[in-house]
Amino acid sequence: MVFKKITLIGTSTESFDDAADNAIDRAEDTLDNVYWIEIDELGVEIASVENREYQAEVTVAFELED
Amino acid sequence: MVFKKITLIGTSTESFDDAADNAIDRAEDTLDNVYWIEIDELGVEIASVENREYQAEVTVAFELED
Amino acid sequence: MVFKKITLIGTSTESFDDAADNAIDRAEDTLDNVYWIEIDELGVEIASVENREYQAEVTVAFELED
Amino acid sequence: MVFKKITLIGTSTESFDDAADNAIDRAEDTLDNVYWIEIDELGVEIASVENREYQAEVTVAFELED
Amino acid sequence: MVFKKITLIGTSTESFDDAADNAIDRAEDTLDNVYWIEIDELGVEIASVENREYQAEVTVAFELED
Amino acid sequence: MVFKKITLIGTSTESFDDAADNAIDRAEDTLDNVYWIEIDELGVEIASVENREYQAEVTVAFELED
Amino acid sequence: MVFKKITLIGTSTESFDDAADNAIDRAEDTLDNVYWIEIDELGVEIASVENREYQAEVTVAFELED
Amino acid sequence: MVFKKITLIGTSTESFDDAADNAIDRAEDTLDNVYWIEIDELGVEIASVENREYQAEVTVAFELED
Amino acid sequence: MVFKKITLIGTSTESFDDAADNAIDRAEDTLDNVYWIEIDELGVEIASVENREYQAEVTVAFELED
Amino acid sequence: MVFKKITLIGTSTESFDDAADNAIDRAEDTLDNVYWIEIDELGVEIASVENREYQAEVTVAFELED
Amino acid sequence: MVFKKITLIGTSTESFDDAADNAIDRAEDTLDNVYWIEIDELGVEIASVENREYQAEVTVAFELED
Amino acid sequence: MVFKKITLIGTSTESFDDAADNAIDRAEDTLDNVYWIEIDELGVEIASVENREYQAEVTVAFELED
Repeated sequence: MVFKKITLIGTSTESFDDAADNAIDRAEDTLDNVYWIEIDELGVEIASVENREYQAEVTVAFELED
Repeated sequence: MVFKKITLIGTSTESFDDAADNAIDRAEDTLDNVYWIEIDELGVEIASVENREYQAEVTVAFELED
Repeated sequence: MVFKKITLIGTSTESFDDAADNAIDRAEDTLDNVYWIEIDELGVEIASVENREYQAEVTVAFELED
Repeated sequence: MVFKKITLIGTSTESFDDAADNAIDRAEDTLDNVYWIEIDELGVEIASVENREYQAEVTVAFELED
Repeated sequence: MVFKKITLIGTSTESFDDAADNAIDRAEDTLDNVYWIEIDELGVEIASVENREYQAEVTVAFELED
Repeated sequence: MVFKKITLIGTSTESFDDAADNAIDRAEDTLDNVYWIEIDELGVEIASVENREYQAEVTVAFELED
Repeated sequence: MVFKKITLIGTSTESFDDAADNAIDRAEDTLDNVYWIEIDELGVEIASVENREYQAEVTVAFELED
Repeated sequence: MVFKKITLIGTSTESFDDAADNAIDRAEDTLDNVYWIEIDELGVEIASVENREYQAEVTVAFELED
Repeated sequence: MVFKKITLIGTSTESFDDAADNAIDRAEDTLDNVYWIEIDELGVEIASVENREYQAEVTVAFELED
Repeated sequence: MVFKKITLIGTSTESFDDAADNAIDRAEDTLDNVYWIEIDELGVEIASVENREYQAEVTVAFELED
Repeated sequence: MVFKKITLIGTSTESFDDAADNAIDRAEDTLDNVYWIEIDELGVEIASVENREYQAEVTVAFELED
Repeated sequence: MVFKKITLIGTSTESFDDAADNAIDRAEDTLDNVYWIEIDELGVEIASVENREYQAEVTVAFELED
């Protein structure tokens, strides 16, 4: 069993939890065996968006197929 | 006055805030003088649980009795 | 264009998201061009307050005027 | 010459060396020009497996083709 | 479900793997639900012992009973 | 031989050295085989105390009995 | 909006700036929506090359298509 | 003698050296006794600018007047 | 309640404790509600001073007025 | 008693343990009072060698003679 | 094959690249088998020099002779 | 001008300040142009000595002669 890790940044106008969930949703759309994620960083983008945009950088671990 | 620090991981199917609160609840069940906690890490367990399980690793600081 | 970064700690009796928002609100009260913030640390103060006080240390980046 | 780095976690019921080797084996199955790897983290999974499972998280550096 | 983490240093005159295993053995002697361990640091004591003593500092995560 | 590490915070109105010594004293009151300590963090509490309170967070390593 | 981050190492016989630019050039050859890059590490390879080879490890953030 | 440290981010369309110099220039415009600076982070903004914008985050140390 | 953090470097020809105290003294001269400080770094300047100059870099947390 | 620390990288075609031992052997060839070593980093060189070359970067602490 | 690592700080009134090159030049004046260098820190000295002095702290890895 | 950095550990039965001073004294016995030192770590050895032995690991920066 070998796992691979990739790094995504989810965004949300609602909350940090929602931003993390959006990143996980995206990972599960394209990857079959997501095992766990780790939160790397949280931030808020303000100047380039209309409202505050919550951002969650997450590392996603999934099992590689044989 | 001497403090001790221990590390707990709270879990929740709701949110990171709830996971942290569960760890603090547990600490206060068995310790009398909890002063503050620090969030060390946030993560989400996915493969081994039915729904996403939010996890918050917290360091709990409490005062030791004389 | 030169940015400056300052560090604030927002507090809330509600949630970490609310604590971070309070820090951003305060920054925007006194600074004109806030671009983004980064979450440095999350914690909960317990002993010196009536209820749990959620705290979010944030670094605020804003553009300096010429 | 441009290199890319990816992160894999190899597992083994034998040893940390074997876990690292399994990750490198997997990388070399699908990548032509692996140059070096770095060990990021070592751990042992216990509860969800029959015996102790040694795990080695490795970063793999390989040359991108032109 | 709440986990607790403690830190042990296992020692061995044989190898780092053996030093880590000794720390896990000790943890399982006194704790019922060990889930996983992480390697924090590896080192070798030389001056105060007859032969080289391999040391593995490990963080042990176990489930607290309700 | 297996060691365990715990984290204490000693306090003193005199100095950082005194704060560290108070944490070691406390550790030796309840533990038989303290081997060494490491200073993790130094700080000064000001608002909630009459005078400055020097604080030393220390990790204490002691040998576990067989 | 979800971003992904990958890690590249650009090389150059000229300068660190040039090494970073080469990594960005490569990223933009194959990715449509590169937003920003961060410098992770700088180094110089000497023994295995004729002249000094400046190396810049960069993390590239790009937007994933829906 | 007491120093203060502040954090600025200089930008340049030319190079990292130029970005750092612009931050130092700005610091010296408003501060009398700048002693030294440290580079904290280097990055390149790409999506929101016409050309690549090199960015250097610097910590500036200056002497406070009595 | 919102806190702000600033970074000062105190100096002393006597000791590290004295250097930290000088930084706190300076902070309290100009700020009304200093809550706590953290020691970031300790060092000794030798070449540019007559005797050894002990230096303590401290982060000072104070409450912002409404 | 004053100690000095130096950094060596041992290599081996066998294992990480062997790579660390080779670094210690080399240290003891030229230094009389080696006290302990710490593992800083583990890696594997692949492209420039015939077989995998395990590498262990170690910091060696030894006592300076009076 | 055993490598040793030492740490140098190169200086230049021109640029960071030049400061790093000066440190490498110095290393190659006295060491036969320099393999690679890593940049640890970049900074600029201002107060004690006439013009800005760019500084690059580098770790130099070289092969020890048998 | 090129600086070199080495790492020493000073010891003292009195205090951390004294341990750091002993390391600096030793450095100045054998090196002509010591510029500054940084404190890397503080600790106390207990088991292998009669009284508590304060230890200060310091990095010493000195100018290399041309």
